[in-house]
Amino acid sequence: MTQKAVIISCGDELTNGATIDTNSAFLSRRLRELGVAVIRHVTVGDDLERLALAIAAAADEASIVILTGGLGPTLDDVSRQALAAAMGNLPLVEDAHSLERISRFFVKINRPMTPSNRTQALLPAGAEALDNDWGTAPGIAAQVKNARVFVLPGPPHEMTPMFERLVAPRLGGGGAIAYRTLHCFGQGESAIGEQLADLMHRDQAIRVGTTASGGIISVRIAAGGADDAQAAASAQAVADDVRRRLGDLIFGQEGQSLSAVVGGLLRQADQRLAVAESCTGGLVGQLITAVAGASDYFLGGVISYADQLKGKLLGVTEEMLSRHGAVSQPVATAMAEGAAKLTGADWALAVTGIAGPGGGSEEKPVGLVYIALAGPAGTSAWRYVFPGDRDMVRLRCALSAINHLRLALLAEAHKSG
Amino acid sequence: MTQKAVIISCGDELTNGATIDTNSAFLSRRLRELGVAVIRHVTVGDDLERLALAIAAAADEASIVILTGGLGPTLDDVSRQALAAAMGNLPLVEDAHSLERISRFFVKINRPMTPSNRTQALLPAGAEALDNDWGTAPGIAAQVKNARVFVLPGPPHEMTPMFERLVAPRLGGGGAIAYRTLHCFGQGESAIGEQLADLMHRDQAIRVGTTASGGIISVRIAAGGADDAQAAASAQAVADDVRRRLGDLIFGQEGQSLSAVVGGLLRQADQRLAVAESCTGGLVGQLITAVAGASDYFLGGVISYADQLKGKLLGVTEEMLSRHGAVSQPVATAMAEGAAKLTGADWALAVTGIAGPGGGSEEKPVGLVYIALAGPAGTSAWRYVFPGDRDMVRLRCALSAINHLRLALLAEAHKSG
Repeated sequence: MTQKAVIISCGDELTNGATIDTNSAFLSRRLRELGVAVIRHVTVGDDLERLALAIAAAADEASIVILTGGLGPTLDDVSRQALAAAMGNLPLVEDAHSLERISRFFVKINRPMTPSNRTQALLPAGAEALDNDWGTAPGIAAQVKNARVFVLPGPPHEMTPMFERLVAPRLGGGGAIAYRTLHCFGQGESAIGEQLADLMHRDQAIRVGTTASGGIISVRIAAGGADDAQAAASAQAVADDVRRRLGDLIFGQEGQSLSAVVGGLLRQADQRLAVAESCTGGLVGQLITAVAGASDYFLGGVISYADQLKGKLLGVTEEMLSRHGAVSQPVATAMAEGAAKLTGADWALAVTGIAGPGGGSEEKPVGLVYIALAGPAGTSAWRYVFPGDRDMVRLRCALSAINHLRLALLAEAHKSG
Repeated sequence: MTQKAVIISCGDELTNGATIDTNSAFLSRRLRELGVAVIRHVTVGDDLERLALAIAAAADEASIVILTGGLGPTLDDVSRQALAAAMGNLPLVEDAHSLERISRFFVKINRPMTPSNRTQALLPAGAEALDNDWGTAPGIAAQVKNARVFVLPGPPHEMTPMFERLVAPRLGGGGAIAYRTLHCFGQGESAIGEQLADLMHRDQAIRVGTTASGGIISVRIAAGGADDAQAAASAQAVADDVRRRLGDLIFGQEGQSLSAVVGGLLRQADQRLAVAESCTGGLVGQLITAVAGASDYFLGGVISYADQLKGKLLGVTEEMLSRHGAVSQPVATAMAEGAAKLTGADWALAVTGIAGPGGGSEEKPVGLVYIALAGPAGTSAWRYVFPGDRDMVRLRCALSAINHLRLALLAEAHKSG
């Protein structure tokens, strides 16, 4: 029989509308993939009594309850107390293991631990601490009536890895499910969805879905089987099929970032990269260096936000600027070639564009971007008009630049391979 | 007395995680502005019985219930039936006015009306139709026990104008709530919480809470009052108190970003900024240029990830590097001064550090960062050891750098003011 779950979110910032709850959608998707049916989401403010009632009501209806939020160190964080109340007014006791982990965390960051942080080591009697490697507050696993209740911190960068590592493995049962995730860049979600339409409407044993986040489209495959080996073989067969259909659109898998993949290709080719950024203001460099070990292949570059720096450091001439404008293919090309020359890099990526909301014209609208790539075989340039707001234009621009480098590196490897 | 509301969202696409619910946050924000306290959000799938129970439970606790979704023409849309059930198993009756509006809509778009669209004119006996000028499904207003229940279509482009035109005007009266949010940087949530502990002790008339996101701590204040003016005065008094206690830790309010505040100060002083980034790889520039209009005060700078660029572009000497190492105060200072000289900026921020996870030593651990700021009155430098993973170290580092610039700009303004 399918297990049922209720997801509870806690926080005044949710009930007053300051924050949109994304945790519930994430957990719902993951629970569905794990074969668990989510019957309800409930959101309450930082209110001990209401939260305790919500936990108790959820435990009456579902066998799994996941609560996010309310584990911070301040007085408005009431999830520990509410869980203890729902467990039958159990006392909170200090968990020595958690206290030691929290203390060590503060030693490591060389800051005094405040008394309020000590409250984060409190657990309802008989509950289990879930180690948090991404923040101070441990999670909690407990039993309320017939339901297993998991309490996780609210910040998504703590909640999601804790769910994957500590909660998801406990929710299986009844056969095996294997997962594959493939990441794509270069087409929209609907275009990719159309190429996979028959796979996405197949059956319950193999589920294929797409999600879009920050310009990256991920194809998620979940395949059931009698055991792990069978489920894995089934998931792999579908993944292979998806790879055949989407080809170069797929840049990586299982959480790999575009920057990490490009970094791997640069390292393999023993080549160095530099950047020259205008409208992205440092975003390309920031994405490239988000990968540990980027110093093996990334030299750095120039943020030439003001035109004077495009001239002084990159060799863009006054004449180019006045004739074509800063947002133009000749300027992008000169920026890339100038960055390669300045740094001695094998590859140089340049971007110049109009991120908006102001600064657009009929001829050069907001979203217009030129990307240039100088490399061993010469310089190429591309023109785009990206939709969306300033953040979106800048992100699309940076990711497109990095993706062009990926395709160029693949082509080079193919030539020499 | 403040009115209480429960918001219900209905749809399998929400409970299976395919769609993130944004309606609840919108409605919460608007209700808050109308002086209504939202005590809970509930999301259920397309399930008649569960939805009817959710409506009935909400009507027990709140005087206002807003339900979105489930008004479509297909069989899985069950909001009409669920409302009728919650009203005491009332029958559904066809509303002639709504049927005529729906028929006219199809004539207007020159398409035949299907029988299933006719079901959209059904209402629980005694309920009132809310005209929908943005789609086919009328909304519904009804009484369930002592609560007023409003049912609106799920698509935000229909829901939001219908709420504004048909629901909001009916919700006034009965006290008001005013809100203030103050954003802090420079101390952890627990340290800030301790300075506000007495304010954060639960009091129903004035609530003070903290949330942490990406290194920024936000203090949220909600104050009730007999009317808007009284609530606003009360919220302002608490905000003033929080400002007195936290002083310079507070950089902004009501959603302002640190970069936007610093940008405003630079613009006010008519001064220019440049950056020299090592471990952050462009993140400082990216944050500064996330603000539209940053070209008024941001020139750009150098991403000197490789040591050779620190030398070539910023004047960091071989001797400095070999004697102190790239992650050192003398190098940070030289980078800042070099960037100011290279670009002609009034202010230059430099960062150099060990973002990890590799590259640390006993003497220079992962998280060690030097920040330097060259300005009109000379160059200052700071040493930090930041906790957390690579992303967190880089973000803290970039925000701390920008915050030092903020404090320096404030000090300059104070001197000359």
